[in-house]
Amino acid sequence: MSIKKRYDLMIPGPVSVEDEVLAEMAQPIVAHYGREWSDLFNETVEMAKQVFQTQSDLFIMVGSGHYGVEAALNSLVEPGEDVILVETGHFGHRAVELANSHLAKTHVIDVGWDDTVKPEQVAEALKAHPAAKVLAIVQNETSTGLANPIREVAQICSEHDVILMVDGVSSVGGMDLKVDEWGVDVCVTASQKCLEAPPGLVLVSVSQKAVDHMRARKTPIAGWAMNLLKWKEAADEGRFFQPYYITMAVSNVLALHKSLELILAEGLASRFARHQEVGAAFRDGVRKLGLEPYGSDEQASGIVGVFRVPEGYVDTDIVSFVKENHGIQIAGGLSRLTGKTVRVGHMGPGARMDKIVPVLDALEHWLSSEGLLRKK
Amino acid sequence: MSIKKRYDLMIPGPVSVEDEVLAEMAQPIVAHYGREWSDLFNETVEMAKQVFQTQSDLFIMVGSGHYGVEAALNSLVEPGEDVILVETGHFGHRAVELANSHLAKTHVIDVGWDDTVKPEQVAEALKAHPAAKVLAIVQNETSTGLANPIREVAQICSEHDVILMVDGVSSVGGMDLKVDEWGVDVCVTASQKCLEAPPGLVLVSVSQKAVDHMRARKTPIAGWAMNLLKWKEAADEGRFFQPYYITMAVSNVLALHKSLELILAEGLASRFARHQEVGAAFRDGVRKLGLEPYGSDEQASGIVGVFRVPEGYVDTDIVSFVKENHGIQIAGGLSRLTGKTVRVGHMGPGARMDKIVPVLDALEHWLSSEGLLRKK
Repeated sequence: MSIKKRYDLMIPGPVSVEDEVLAEMAQPIVAHYGREWSDLFNETVEMAKQVFQTQSDLFIMVGSGHYGVEAALNSLVEPGEDVILVETGHFGHRAVELANSHLAKTHVIDVGWDDTVKPEQVAEALKAHPAAKVLAIVQNETSTGLANPIREVAQICSEHDVILMVDGVSSVGGMDLKVDEWGVDVCVTASQKCLEAPPGLVLVSVSQKAVDHMRARKTPIAGWAMNLLKWKEAADEGRFFQPYYITMAVSNVLALHKSLELILAEGLASRFARHQEVGAAFRDGVRKLGLEPYGSDEQASGIVGVFRVPEGYVDTDIVSFVKENHGIQIAGGLSRLTGKTVRVGHMGPGARMDKIVPVLDALEHWLSSEGLLRKK
Repeated sequence: MSIKKRYDLMIPGPVSVEDEVLAEMAQPIVAHYGREWSDLFNETVEMAKQVFQTQSDLFIMVGSGHYGVEAALNSLVEPGEDVILVETGHFGHRAVELANSHLAKTHVIDVGWDDTVKPEQVAEALKAHPAAKVLAIVQNETSTGLANPIREVAQICSEHDVILMVDGVSSVGGMDLKVDEWGVDVCVTASQKCLEAPPGLVLVSVSQKAVDHMRARKTPIAGWAMNLLKWKEAADEGRFFQPYYITMAVSNVLALHKSLELILAEGLASRFARHQEVGAAFRDGVRKLGLEPYGSDEQASGIVGVFRVPEGYVDTDIVSFVKENHGIQIAGGLSRLTGKTVRVGHMGPGARMDKIVPVLDALEHWLSSEGLLRKK
């Protein structure tokens, strides 16, 4: 068996990656240790730090975004300890589940899945739960396409001396997230979204404040894989030989190395602007077709374009039509938004006008075929 | 920066993989969900089950061998519970560390790092620690190249109704391990050794007995990534759409799918025989050069050829010489065997006479250059 049909991938990750990145995946396998390899690995880490806009530690782990979020929560919050989590969608909710699975005492700022958090809600929660020393939030909620105001949240956390953990899985490399300047203590992203590489790696930055916090725990962090201090120990000790305790996914690292080169060559500022422009154009196009973009334009991340499914239809009606008739793969709603929303990833190589216009054309075709077209 | 020097990879993993497997890594990225993808993923799982010789559940996780071993221990043993672990080398020791990191009460059968366990040692330990309901053991100890007698150990565990977890990271696909017939409850392997695929995936089989054991726990399994019941839940619920809760490393799965096809086309019996023959030939060749193979021929796994470094030298003397003068990468000793042993992986594509002869030639060259040659 092999994958027979290939679609133009416009889902919110994994993204279609550039040919030169794919080519790295097919390089002959090399050892995951030794000076030459660790130099390349460390260079990959340094490039990732530039994209994270941080000079703190950054670990590249084999895994998915989930692993990174779980590792952060497992490392920062002891069983029974208080943690505040902002929930504005599926991935915010997932973080709550992950924290609960490690027996944290979770306090959820339940904003609803059609909105973003207001800074004052964060301030209130911090006052209401003074025992909480960690707050977790998603930047771009991939399930809604709406971005929480990380800069403002970070400011409030800083005032309360609370550790801030940001799930930047779908945002890092696609929208501004100044990890050091804003004061984000732990930031997580994955290889397959705005970093434009194949899935299989998760990247986690950890501030000195977060390291100190972990080291001051009363109980040791459980396990190794989800233990950021273990990753730090291995990185520090094995810097010039093997900066992790596992067999690294070397091919995926080579691909990430290449994609980070492309990202830095483009430049972060122009890259973020490109995503913003394309995101705005997509919402505009959707609106002109008579469809309703999710949330407000101010909340929109520019990375995932989300709109509501017209009454009387479900998401798969649209997703299947676009796939079958236009060869483009887009996505439906997640968990409690299943059926109700359609999501289009315009990330990395997909954040281009010539990539979203065919999607808008396909949507117009669907609307027209259903007699729903009322162009504005 | 890029990897400039390429060596013929004869380390004990990752292995050089076949071109057609590498080519799969460079296939365009596809979504990690949907019917067509899940069919391919499930077919990969089914092929892996054939190599594991099991009909039980098998989960493919993004990760390294370590993750699989940790997931097994975290899932099978509750904090404070007794577990018996057989230590015959670095990886047996690693399992002890991982179990300790999850607060298990570990009882180690400390065999020494130059031997394999005797079945009666296992029987004694089970009698001495009747509270232990789980026993963990490595099949081929990658650090020594010596294989523990899993069949006999499984028999004893079965008699005591103890769950058996086998670290088959470097053995599955290279030597016989009849998971179902012998009664191995949890078996772990990784993609990059005898499965001949790039690193990045770990495979874990779980018997119904092990599932029942996990479900009967007094405390829930901590976390998700290291929680085999969570992987089972996602596999069962998402069978025909997305049989895991993460973004799967799709490229790595495509490569593994191809490598498993190659493995099954060769046939397990002839494959195991090939590894045995090449392993024996390597030890023979080493001996003829006047070097001392590690352990006895009966204990040797046939997968990793290990010999002692001659007095007055360290492993890197040999490893560097072979690398620089012959373009072949072999490995030194691990942790407490650092300096003392040299390890040559003859796994998968490397388990061929035309791959080990150049290594033996290189070793002869080194011995000769040091005036140590005393061919037998």
